[in-house]
Amino acid sequence: MNTTRHPGNTESPAVRAVNPTTGQELDPPFPCTTLDELDRAVRRATDAFRSYSRLPGKQRACLLEAIAANLEAAAEPIIERAHAETALPKARLQGEMARTCYQLRFLGRLAEEGSWVDARVDHGMPDRKPQPKPDVRSMLRPVGPVAVFGSSNFPLAFSVAGGDTASALAAGNTVLFKVHPGHPGTSDLVGRAIQKAVQASGMPEGVFALLFDSGTQIGAALVQHPQVKAVGFTGSRRAGRMFVALAAARPEPIPVFAEMGSVNPVFVLPHAMRERGAAIAEGIHASVILGVGQFCTNPGLVVFKADQVAQVFQQKLVELFSNTPAGTMLTPAICRNFISGIEALKRVHGVSELAHGTTDSGPNKAAAVLLAVDAATFLREPLLAQEVFGPSTLLVQCQTDEEMLNVANSLEGQLTATVHATDAELAAGIDLMQMLEAKAGRLIANGYPTGVEVCDAMVHSGPYPACSDPRSTSVGARAIQRFARLVCYQNWPDWALPDGLKDGNPLGLWRIVDGVQGRH
Amino acid sequence: MNTTRHPGNTESPAVRAVNPTTGQELDPPFPCTTLDELDRAVRRATDAFRSYSRLPGKQRACLLEAIAANLEAAAEPIIERAHAETALPKARLQGEMARTCYQLRFLGRLAEEGSWVDARVDHGMPDRKPQPKPDVRSMLRPVGPVAVFGSSNFPLAFSVAGGDTASALAAGNTVLFKVHPGHPGTSDLVGRAIQKAVQASGMPEGVFALLFDSGTQIGAALVQHPQVKAVGFTGSRRAGRMFVALAAARPEPIPVFAEMGSVNPVFVLPHAMRERGAAIAEGIHASVILGVGQFCTNPGLVVFKADQVAQVFQQKLVELFSNTPAGTMLTPAICRNFISGIEALKRVHGVSELAHGTTDSGPNKAAAVLLAVDAATFLREPLLAQEVFGPSTLLVQCQTDEEMLNVANSLEGQLTATVHATDAELAAGIDLMQMLEAKAGRLIANGYPTGVEVCDAMVHSGPYPACSDPRSTSVGARAIQRFARLVCYQNWPDWALPDGLKDGNPLGLWRIVDGVQGRH
Repeated sequence: MNTTRHPGNTESPAVRAVNPTTGQELDPPFPCTTLDELDRAVRRATDAFRSYSRLPGKQRACLLEAIAANLEAAAEPIIERAHAETALPKARLQGEMARTCYQLRFLGRLAEEGSWVDARVDHGMPDRKPQPKPDVRSMLRPVGPVAVFGSSNFPLAFSVAGGDTASALAAGNTVLFKVHPGHPGTSDLVGRAIQKAVQASGMPEGVFALLFDSGTQIGAALVQHPQVKAVGFTGSRRAGRMFVALAAARPEPIPVFAEMGSVNPVFVLPHAMRERGAAIAEGIHASVILGVGQFCTNPGLVVFKADQVAQVFQQKLVELFSNTPAGTMLTPAICRNFISGIEALKRVHGVSELAHGTTDSGPNKAAAVLLAVDAATFLREPLLAQEVFGPSTLLVQCQTDEEMLNVANSLEGQLTATVHATDAELAAGIDLMQMLEAKAGRLIANGYPTGVEVCDAMVHSGPYPACSDPRSTSVGARAIQRFARLVCYQNWPDWALPDGLKDGNPLGLWRIVDGVQGRH
Repeated sequence: MNTTRHPGNTESPAVRAVNPTTGQELDPPFPCTTLDELDRAVRRATDAFRSYSRLPGKQRACLLEAIAANLEAAAEPIIERAHAETALPKARLQGEMARTCYQLRFLGRLAEEGSWVDARVDHGMPDRKPQPKPDVRSMLRPVGPVAVFGSSNFPLAFSVAGGDTASALAAGNTVLFKVHPGHPGTSDLVGRAIQKAVQASGMPEGVFALLFDSGTQIGAALVQHPQVKAVGFTGSRRAGRMFVALAAARPEPIPVFAEMGSVNPVFVLPHAMRERGAAIAEGIHASVILGVGQFCTNPGLVVFKADQVAQVFQQKLVELFSNTPAGTMLTPAICRNFISGIEALKRVHGVSELAHGTTDSGPNKAAAVLLAVDAATFLREPLLAQEVFGPSTLLVQCQTDEEMLNVANSLEGQLTATVHATDAELAAGIDLMQMLEAKAGRLIANGYPTGVEVCDAMVHSGPYPACSDPRSTSVGARAIQRFARLVCYQNWPDWALPDGLKDGNPLGLWRIVDGVQGRH
């Protein structure tokens, strides 16, 4: 990414992608959105919200289906451009495209089915003594225009038509999307696919807008705009905290759902290590280097008892890392940060580099790195528990069970925590499990954290910094409830209620009526 | 409330209640909690959380039942003391006691029934291509020690054993309760009733702790304590924003659910005015002066078209307010703030005082006040839309429908918004209804905002400043979900899962299993 003057407009800077494989700038430059344009876009989003938020779920589902269909129709140029902008392999981008379209349809189905609104009906009792009981009904409603920030590492699934956009639209909100400067061309193509679907559905164009910026000015103005009602963000802790602070300092503070990093610890217990240490080493290595380590759920810490058996496991990891070819990272900045992050870890006294993958002189290439440290040093040095975004992991060698527990206890909030253990170890390790349960949004037994299934039960969240709101998730069915708030109607005539709350349940929702759950 | 040195401890200041009716200090003084004591209390709460959070819902329900029973057994001295500390009539306090016990049992039933955890199960498909589908299950879990701040105006129902305490305990959290300095003696008695129930249930004493302070030092330290995981607050905007900011600035930010005020506008449309203006005036007056106007849902604005018919309505209000006897307010500070708040409103050019209740020379007495202003002035002066806590309301006289809409649009977030309208007016006034829906947590048709029914569907929340998190509510069944977060278990063996997620559904919860809702 680079900024430059836009040819046709000497006043306005532009966002320009860099091909990370060649280091060359890619055409065209995309002019940065001006503050005036931003304000007009938010006003259009506010106007559009009035009608869009009132549409039946079925129509919102049709919009999401139309977006998915448009993306599939334009898949080839989108993937071509994403490959040029991010260096991600085309097969991976095809998979990501499929996931993106699946998410749109999955959330569309939820919007159409409708029970996500958590409708509750308590009929009145006008004759109750000493006071009549009012008729009280409530459900979740959309909040208004939502600001969404694209992530760098999923140019499709966590970007323009990604999870936050899909959940916001599914719930009845309009979306103002701030493009990630790492893939502006991809974003532009995807944004057009969405806008075409909006237009073809006869909806107001303000339902969706794309905003470009090379810095943080537009993002900050967006979070501060009085008509923006919520924010979705995936990125660095620094930027995430900045947006959280800006949103909290508004005259009317608004919620920010910010995913700000995770080191995704993997704990390997002794009996599991003995039974299948080599297989676990292979699994961890594959998870660490997947996508050149550029996953939110990349396992950045491996914690185990440093006994004789673990030597074999460690030796296997050394072998695997040593033979790992270098990979091209998403952007020059991400590559620089990875290299300086590893250097900072290595400068800590007691950290050793056990292995280093093959190097490559091409631009933005990162070699895989395997580091190790003893638990006592790890517990002294908070830096070692920080995420380094890229293909590396830090082995934390413990002497005792208590040290493993202390390492777990020292961690910040996490998207995931993984335990490799036999059944007997799981049963005996209740303290460790409880500790990890308090730290992570998703607990994985005998598996690996990369790969986030899109399903009803998925939770992609966790205590800070994993997420600024661990009651919410950005992946899975509950994501549709992120950009919503409770509204209650008291003694409202039936015909004037939203359909979801009417007697007779015309939408056929699962509801709680007079305390009884049912489709009634 | 006053602070003084505690007789036995010259180092520590104390909280001392004032009887608002006499202006005299009440014995005994309650020593302020020290920072050391606070730290020990939080540590005990953290230890207690380990076991308490694992108890079956049935045992948590038993604790809540035991608290309610202890309160009922001690009702007489508690109500006696609350009456002395707050000047609230005993009949009102008896009603509030009944409500408090009802809330405890209501939330206990939810804890025992268990479906509030929103359990979801997606079975794995090991043979799925290209990748196996993992087994993914998730539910809400308690968060840890919760800090709760008591409100001034409900010494029972929104205080020590009030809604936030009940929801936090019901969900499996431990509670650190910061006593409101207006009713320390009541708080002490209620706190003992809780502690006795905790002890009798064989639970660790850290499940519940009471903290006293005359200022904000202990409250601030509580919100900043690293082991406190969430905050519930009801009070002023100034204090609420302070706690929200402190929580956001922590190394690990935590959620704050702060209720910070609402003016609860009432819109009276012309045909309803014609049909039953006098009755509406009576209803509004009763709602304004209820409890000397000291309700969060007190109607502070009445918006209507100032035509001929409205003259009758206005005249009726003047009569009613003029004949209202003065009432004793909860604390000297609240009374001073009410008087200075009314003076500030009256200093605004264009605001007139239409009526004033009878005055009384006793301490802390407030006369009811009826003010009026034209809509144009209201729209120019943001001060006029601010809450003045006490027995007053401001009539906003509009010339046109558009002015009414502009008044609605100018409002901040509200706990409630009320509309008096005929069916035809409701049908025609869709713009106004949509506007109010965007502003308020609860919309009332042809009723009055005071009186918050405890039921499944109730929402006591709303956009800022009504609540810092309008996705949550402090009253009603969904309150149990406030102090909870999502936790997901991937490929976890069935026996190691929480009961709520096990195959066979041993707790009989309503769940979503493989996309299908049911009790399975």
